[in-house]
Amino acid sequence: MGRWQPDSRGRLQEAALALYSERGFDQTTAAQIADQAGLTERTFFRHFADKREVLFGGSAILKERIVDGVAGAPTGAGPLDAVAAGLQAAAAMLGESRRDLTRQRQAVIAANPELRERELAKLADYAAAVTEALHERGVPEPQATLAADAGTTVLRVALQRWATADEDTDLAVVVRESFAELKAVATGT
Amino acid sequence: MGRWQPDSRGRLQEAALALYSERGFDQTTAAQIADQAGLTERTFFRHFADKREVLFGGSAILKERIVDGVAGAPTGAGPLDAVAAGLQAAAAMLGESRRDLTRQRQAVIAANPELRERELAKLADYAAAVTEALHERGVPEPQATLAADAGTTVLRVALQRWATADEDTDLAVVVRESFAELKAVATGT
Repeated sequence: MGRWQPDSRGRLQEAALALYSERGFDQTTAAQIADQAGLTERTFFRHFADKREVLFGGSAILKERIVDGVAGAPTGAGPLDAVAAGLQAAAAMLGESRRDLTRQRQAVIAANPELRERELAKLADYAAAVTEALHERGVPEPQATLAADAGTTVLRVALQRWATADEDTDLAVVVRESFAELKAVATGT
Repeated sequence: MGRWQPDSRGRLQEAALALYSERGFDQTTAAQIADQAGLTERTFFRHFADKREVLFGGSAILKERIVDGVAGAPTGAGPLDAVAAGLQAAAAMLGESRRDLTRQRQAVIAANPELRERELAKLADYAAAVTEALHERGVPEPQATLAADAGTTVLRVALQRWATADEDTDLAVVVRESFAELKAVATGT
């Protein structure tokens, strides 16, 4: 296999996260990330469109999981319960990632306006896909948009809580609890 | 008063909206907007930081109104009812704007990814301010974030519905109805 090594993508992501944390996002170049990962800049751009995208590498798969979860919810489930099923599918995937890396990633994003904008765009993209999946389940507007947006809020809140919780806390449980909190807030209890 | 004319800001906003609709956002320069408004490019940049910002001219005042509305809600009001009070304050302000311009503005934003990103950033900024106002009312996390985010979703949905509704539809009523829909979605009724 020569100099080929498995998972260049993962190595680039880990290197980027380390450098963004150390030096800051603006002070890091794609070439430096590639170098740290033992790869070339060309390889970096074969995997990621830009320096921001390296932090959002799993988002296409995540969106697919969420949408599949919504589509696969029981026929009788209401809009928000269908969204909850989608988020449980996401939690199953995200819950496998290392909590320290998730925490580090969130700190990097929080520190940079450009990264925060990209994250908001990704969340809006998930919400749009979920809205469409709800339409296909026969949910009309504005219920579909309201349920989909509420779902992305729950996901964001749950990830934040999970990243700072005890090591043995399960993301799926935090998502479930956050949904319950949303219902409580909405009903004013 | 010489060549001074009132409301350069409003004229720049209207000119920008017209040009963005006709030619597209990317094909319009700040100089062209200023020219159309009978002003100089320098005046444009005295009022707006960039070409995007001209579409979000009222956002600082709007945020202030929302936050004041949340802070001024009755002491016993729950988090979501406090947010609803904030949005009613926003609706009172936005409801005065011309519906045709609001509709045109939304079409321009929807057509351009950069503008959509800026709009998401503004909504996130409102949500952060509302979250803080809820903290000051003694609302803990995650309830504060959940209620604030749900509120910005309701505002977005309500504005969309209002812009395409009959001329005599009141924005305040649409906001109230959208809140009721959110509660219905959350409780699964």
